[in-house]
Amino acid sequence: MATLIDGNATAADIIRELTEEVAGLPRKPCVAFVRVGEDPASVSYVNKKQATAEKIGITSRLQVYPETISQAELLAAIDKLNDDGAVNGILVQAPLPRHVSETTVFRRISPQKDVDGLGTINLGKVAQEDDTGFISCTPAGIMELLARSGISLDGKHVVVLGRSLLVGKPVALLAMQRNARANATVTVCHSHTANLPAVTRTADVLIAAIGKPEFVTADMVKPGAVVIDVGINRVEDATRKRGYRLTGDVHFPSVSETASAITPVPGGVGPMTVAMLMKNTVKSFSMQSGG
Amino acid sequence: MATLIDGNATAADIIRELTEEVAGLPRKPCVAFVRVGEDPASVSYVNKKQATAEKIGITSRLQVYPETISQAELLAAIDKLNDDGAVNGILVQAPLPRHVSETTVFRRISPQKDVDGLGTINLGKVAQEDDTGFISCTPAGIMELLARSGISLDGKHVVVLGRSLLVGKPVALLAMQRNARANATVTVCHSHTANLPAVTRTADVLIAAIGKPEFVTADMVKPGAVVIDVGINRVEDATRKRGYRLTGDVHFPSVSETASAITPVPGGVGPMTVAMLMKNTVKSFSMQSGG
Repeated sequence: MATLIDGNATAADIIRELTEEVAGLPRKPCVAFVRVGEDPASVSYVNKKQATAEKIGITSRLQVYPETISQAELLAAIDKLNDDGAVNGILVQAPLPRHVSETTVFRRISPQKDVDGLGTINLGKVAQEDDTGFISCTPAGIMELLARSGISLDGKHVVVLGRSLLVGKPVALLAMQRNARANATVTVCHSHTANLPAVTRTADVLIAAIGKPEFVTADMVKPGAVVIDVGINRVEDATRKRGYRLTGDVHFPSVSETASAITPVPGGVGPMTVAMLMKNTVKSFSMQSGG
Repeated sequence: MATLIDGNATAADIIRELTEEVAGLPRKPCVAFVRVGEDPASVSYVNKKQATAEKIGITSRLQVYPETISQAELLAAIDKLNDDGAVNGILVQAPLPRHVSETTVFRRISPQKDVDGLGTINLGKVAQEDDTGFISCTPAGIMELLARSGISLDGKHVVVLGRSLLVGKPVALLAMQRNARANATVTVCHSHTANLPAVTRTADVLIAAIGKPEFVTADMVKPGAVVIDVGINRVEDATRKRGYRLTGDVHFPSVSETASAITPVPGGVGPMTVAMLMKNTVKSFSMQSGG
């Protein structure tokens, strides 16, 4: 039976550290959240981020726009936040409506305030191994969780399942960096990969970020591997009051028998993502204060 | 015996296409080369690039600075080229002297003129799969050479040996993109990789960019694999008049017996790099002309 990698506990450590750090700052950092529409998952994520900010002593603002907002209006709202000296970080909650280009919107956020790390410059800095940028929160959270769990990647084979801009690509770039937390051999596989189970079975560390509920089964995992489950999928479940349950991209009951360590869903990568957003916000404050 | 992938012939095709295209333009595109010092390899590369530009009908300028130039002076020279409306593309030849940060210099080039594609924004655009940017010339040349040689990567296992910013990382990002030329499963391996020969032997397409002469031997290559040799190493050779010979990262005599197709050095990736620089320069001209 695999050891549980406890994202809640590790995130709580980080939040405690940040709370101390923020208490020593001359004034409170401020993060602005922009939400478009009322998608229940987006509402829930933004609420969670606001609550965590408040706990740490970070001021937050929330701007909510209707689904019908034009791209130009949304860009104008971002420009205003970019120009607002009181705002250190800006996060636009994805997904955005279809008529809005997410890349265009993320790119409009000032790189110095792009605490979600999805703008072009901050992505480029990940490739350049330049730590003056912001690493997007989920990949940063995965790396931090591995490091704080004492799992070294050096010389190991990390297999990333999924090639998204949000997770797959940046976490692959991070894991192959030339530093003590990284130095992994990295494979990125996806929907076009031939004989996928044979590829995932070569992983010492398997990072599943493909967005398919319980896709990774025990036969796809090498005995003793570390499994990081990035998926957060809603699956219908009539036995639950709310009508659904959350599940990862990994079939936890079987894979936890094979793996040496595994993240649960919820309580694995999810809370780390929120913690890293807070860490980025404090970093943005320090950098803007000339720190 | 492997088929030879002829970079000279493919580059010549591209140069012919560009020559026709440039002949139809209202005026000649212009590329500015900046060289620091008299490193013989750098002198030779820049000369080759200038000669190719001239052949196509692209105007080129060359600015040469002494090894002792300060970073501030070099940045000021780039600013001037950025502001010069007659200059479409700017290339600063690497390597730069130790007291100058290459990242800082490359980053200073206007993204719209960064035809070498090494600035932060153009690297980020590769990750974003945004084709409004410039892809750096060697990785772009590798992808173009594979495509024009009829070698599909879709669903194949591409193993990249080397994790440099110049080649390894961008070619890995390109090979995993969601398009008909790419869609590969991609592994990046390097000096920290455990059991490297076992990893390279899983490659359907092996891209060697590690900068070690004749490092890849036949036992590291799966029979029938395609081998792309990115290395250009000078190896002492008393039998040659100039005292050295050029060799790739692949031991050609043995690997060409195992591979199904292979690039030679010289005459493989090298000429493609120059051709793609020219393609980027014409693209920069068209984009700046509102095309």
